[in-house]
Amino acid sequence: MADTDDSSLFRESARERLAAREGFVLADLDPESTPGVDASKKRGEHALAEGSAVLDDLQVRMHANSLSGDRRSVLLVLQAMDSAGKGGIVSHVVGTVDPEGVAHTSFKKPTPEELSHDFLWRIRTALPAAGQIGVFDRSHYEDVLIGRVRELATPEVIEERYGLINEFEREISEAGISIVKVMLHISSDEQKARLGARLEREDKYWKYNPGDVDERLLWPAYQEAYQLAIRKTSTEVAPWFVVPANRKWYARVAVQQLLIETMRGFEQGWPPADYDIDLEKARLAAS
Amino acid sequence: MADTDDSSLFRESARERLAAREGFVLADLDPESTPGVDASKKRGEHALAEGSAVLDDLQVRMHANSLSGDRRSVLLVLQAMDSAGKGGIVSHVVGTVDPEGVAHTSFKKPTPEELSHDFLWRIRTALPAAGQIGVFDRSHYEDVLIGRVRELATPEVIEERYGLINEFEREISEAGISIVKVMLHISSDEQKARLGARLEREDKYWKYNPGDVDERLLWPAYQEAYQLAIRKTSTEVAPWFVVPANRKWYARVAVQQLLIETMRGFEQGWPPADYDIDLEKARLAAS
Repeated sequence: MADTDDSSLFRESARERLAAREGFVLADLDPESTPGVDASKKRGEHALAEGSAVLDDLQVRMHANSLSGDRRSVLLVLQAMDSAGKGGIVSHVVGTVDPEGVAHTSFKKPTPEELSHDFLWRIRTALPAAGQIGVFDRSHYEDVLIGRVRELATPEVIEERYGLINEFEREISEAGISIVKVMLHISSDEQKARLGARLEREDKYWKYNPGDVDERLLWPAYQEAYQLAIRKTSTEVAPWFVVPANRKWYARVAVQQLLIETMRGFEQGWPPADYDIDLEKARLAAS
Repeated sequence: MADTDDSSLFRESARERLAAREGFVLADLDPESTPGVDASKKRGEHALAEGSAVLDDLQVRMHANSLSGDRRSVLLVLQAMDSAGKGGIVSHVVGTVDPEGVAHTSFKKPTPEELSHDFLWRIRTALPAAGQIGVFDRSHYEDVLIGRVRELATPEVIEERYGLINEFEREISEAGISIVKVMLHISSDEQKARLGARLEREDKYWKYNPGDVDERLLWPAYQEAYQLAIRKTSTEVAPWFVVPANRKWYARVAVQQLLIETMRGFEQGWPPADYDIDLEKARLAAS
């Protein structure tokens, strides 16, 4: 049951459809679009609920196999402009997986301790254990996004980071971590509407930060930095997936499907018992 | 809506009903019972689903307030014999809260590094941040449970730990952490049935460990160690709650209700905006 793909709305592989290939142009991707899916919001939400059982099952299998020495894990990297829906992905896609199977890290402005190390130090300490789904809400990419736009390092240092990131990601993927890098792509108008909504409700005020508008004023520079990062760090082992995100239901279904396809690729069955089943039945009966 | 208590099955405070008071005798509590609740399994599962929205809302409020300097957090400590349902509490009670709001730690046999520190060292590093619900799957109590039963330290050292735990818990509760200590109480027969079920299904073999039967053979010694721990560490700031757990639905509803009551006690509204709302509306409109 959890092995069939019937519940998916995608008529083709989401990984194939959403990977940013050579020549990808961010500005040409419509944030309103729903690539690979032709369905209503209602059907999308239904598919999301069905997919959550599939994803949960795949994570439990991955965990079970990790107990017998399988080193595989998954790392979902989420990057986006403010209000694009990273939080919604965390709660609605990852949130349906058993908390024990999830390692979630939200990367904020680096602390003085973090700044005293190289930019990948805090990233390494947060990597998922075997059997887990790691989730990075923001990541090492901030160092070539806000880092570039706000000139937080010299151009040479920024430039060097793309290569360091590619090396790092190859290294951890060889160690068993399957990296799923997602950029949630919203339009400037959609962001304006979402930020505005936070100013209308008492229970949303806390989500608004005046700094969000400061960043918003740099929209073109951020789009350029994203385009560059996607071009320079889309590798064989860790391609970027760019997910149109004006429609929240689509973005959630798409990220869920990316995770499901990635983990199905592991082809993990249930590990055999590493003890004598009949003997244990007898010991238990006698206890 | 999230403020009403209509969805609860408890006709009295779960905290009041389940706290282990002076003179509490573990052996007198029936693991099949459902204290404070008279309902069917079906109604229990329905109430659990309704309560999850309430708990989620309370956590979001706690998080929102933490951004304005409120230091409060919650720490759910789960202790139990094997198969009593800790994992089910984590996935079905805590698992409905946004992963960003949860800090989950599963404590295993201490590593050499952990053993080179005092027994509370690894506990301190795992405490929840302000605004989070921390969950300990096993905890510092292992050091007076398996530690006592398996004589992993001298009797003097074990004896001293109860006092150290009480001091520690008072200290962290003064720092803003509300501790909810739960022992899930199952019967020996129920454990036998649950362990046996793991030996019957290929997809459950990985959950079984021959060591579980070794521990099971020490059942009376463990019950005695629990009784002692409950007696010596049920304090004003951190009482033990002993939850009958032969009926999984009851244990889940009860722990959910303990968390809800604890967090309702914070009486947190939505924090006011710490910026000028009209000014921000104008800035956003102009952006």
